[in-house]
Amino acid sequence: MPLPRQVRLVEVGPRDGLQNEATPVSVAQRIELVDRLSATGLSHIEAGAFVSPRWVPQMADSAAVLAGIRRRPGVRYGVLTPNLQGLEAALTAGADEVAVFASASEGFSQRNINCSISESLQRFAPVLELASERGVAVRGYVSCVLGCPYDGAVAPEQVAAVAVDLQAMGCYEISLGDTIGVGVPSATRRLIEVVGERVPRNRLAGHFHDTYGQALVNIHAALLEGVSVFDSSVAGLGGCPYAQGASGNVASEDVLYMLDGMGISTGVDLRSLVAVGHWICQQLGRENGSRVGRAMGKQ
Amino acid sequence: MPLPRQVRLVEVGPRDGLQNEATPVSVAQRIELVDRLSATGLSHIEAGAFVSPRWVPQMADSAAVLAGIRRRPGVRYGVLTPNLQGLEAALTAGADEVAVFASASEGFSQRNINCSISESLQRFAPVLELASERGVAVRGYVSCVLGCPYDGAVAPEQVAAVAVDLQAMGCYEISLGDTIGVGVPSATRRLIEVVGERVPRNRLAGHFHDTYGQALVNIHAALLEGVSVFDSSVAGLGGCPYAQGASGNVASEDVLYMLDGMGISTGVDLRSLVAVGHWICQQLGRENGSRVGRAMGKQ
Repeated sequence: MPLPRQVRLVEVGPRDGLQNEATPVSVAQRIELVDRLSATGLSHIEAGAFVSPRWVPQMADSAAVLAGIRRRPGVRYGVLTPNLQGLEAALTAGADEVAVFASASEGFSQRNINCSISESLQRFAPVLELASERGVAVRGYVSCVLGCPYDGAVAPEQVAAVAVDLQAMGCYEISLGDTIGVGVPSATRRLIEVVGERVPRNRLAGHFHDTYGQALVNIHAALLEGVSVFDSSVAGLGGCPYAQGASGNVASEDVLYMLDGMGISTGVDLRSLVAVGHWICQQLGRENGSRVGRAMGKQ
Repeated sequence: MPLPRQVRLVEVGPRDGLQNEATPVSVAQRIELVDRLSATGLSHIEAGAFVSPRWVPQMADSAAVLAGIRRRPGVRYGVLTPNLQGLEAALTAGADEVAVFASASEGFSQRNINCSISESLQRFAPVLELASERGVAVRGYVSCVLGCPYDGAVAPEQVAAVAVDLQAMGCYEISLGDTIGVGVPSATRRLIEVVGERVPRNRLAGHFHDTYGQALVNIHAALLEGVSVFDSSVAGLGGCPYAQGASGNVASEDVLYMLDGMGISTGVDLRSLVAVGHWICQQLGRENGSRVGRAMGKQ
């Protein structure tokens, strides 16, 4: 299978990233982060989440973030909406697309969202119906696709079953998440092979965490299997690179460096993205989790 | 090409690693590091260098290190020997094998060892002749195989020419080093293809630095091309993971985690190796550069 010539990077730093940072970030800073990111050429940015601020205080006031950003033509601004209330608020706030979040493992589903996989899909059904009525695209996340902190191994067939259900319910794209970062290239390739038999590969995305340093090599493995959409987080936001068990997102800069070097086009400017990474790390008072960011320095 | 079923890891932490650490390490600590590493199942350890202590103070007293270690049967203890004087000293100290170090780029050769590539090979000739007479195997390093800090791009054909020369002079294995860590998988595959036309792939090793986060993905790329020997450094010794421009070796733990997960055997025990990584970091008072080490914690 030839490598994709083009990749779409889905920047999840303002959501999956900031949501897992301890340092509070103001609405103004979140707006500035999204605007700086859209200026790099990124065409797809997850800008917030419409969830209970009691559960996820970092994502409070996502409506104000959407209201404050300068919308660039051609950029999709998505938000996470786990329920109808969230979706209504997201639609009112003018989100371009929304996302729902299911698990491939029963253990994670039970402990994370307090219901079975099947119950979670039932809960999403009205969200997907309403989004369809309003003509808003829905992205589906599947977590724990290469392993679960509670159940251990997760069969690719089980991931495929959840992906098929999400697609049947109307998700235009399924992002397969290695939530705890335990995957290796052989497992990733097998996963894409199995899921790819039931969902077209051009509707799959890869979402890899770097907990064990395997995120980039898993992205390469997925590229070899024809996947051409990857989620990543500027500066590796969302995981402290120095703490035990921190399940950080792969740094967007490191992914982009590889894709640039391989001649795979993304439309994103590496130098600009590195600058955004340094800026947000300064705001958060944290080290830069991107090796490319550190190597290229604060130019 | 099927993936290798077995990989030999060449642990370079006690040499390439410590040589690039600022914190001084005693001979006793160096001996303990080598002994702890050999207890993990590693079969090939670069234990020191016979170079001028004025140039590389961290490698002073390598003879005392070789004299002090407990030699495990089946483990090869190698040392770097840039000249005849170093080789004589290494032979006296009982090194199992020695290594010489050339560059694939003229700029790096001139600035690093003050002579052209061709002159450096001429200097190694008597080293290789004497080693052959004494029946000691010689490993050849080639640096800057995917880019040079002075010359920029380096043609794979140029790397091949140096590798061919080293092989012709008697090196049993050629370790291809991405000294500044700029490589990406496509370039790595092309490099192995080109060099592999002139030197058998089972005589090639990969030596990747993680400066831009690409080391592991490049190892995967080289594996896909049939390379089955990789240099790595426990805890990523030799490069501060947080400093700009630090050209750290890939962490042995992260490589081993991937190989283990892919069912590729190495004979090395991951948990033991992680423990050695934490131990040496404690000795050095530094953060652990291995993500696997950080994720698995100090168990």
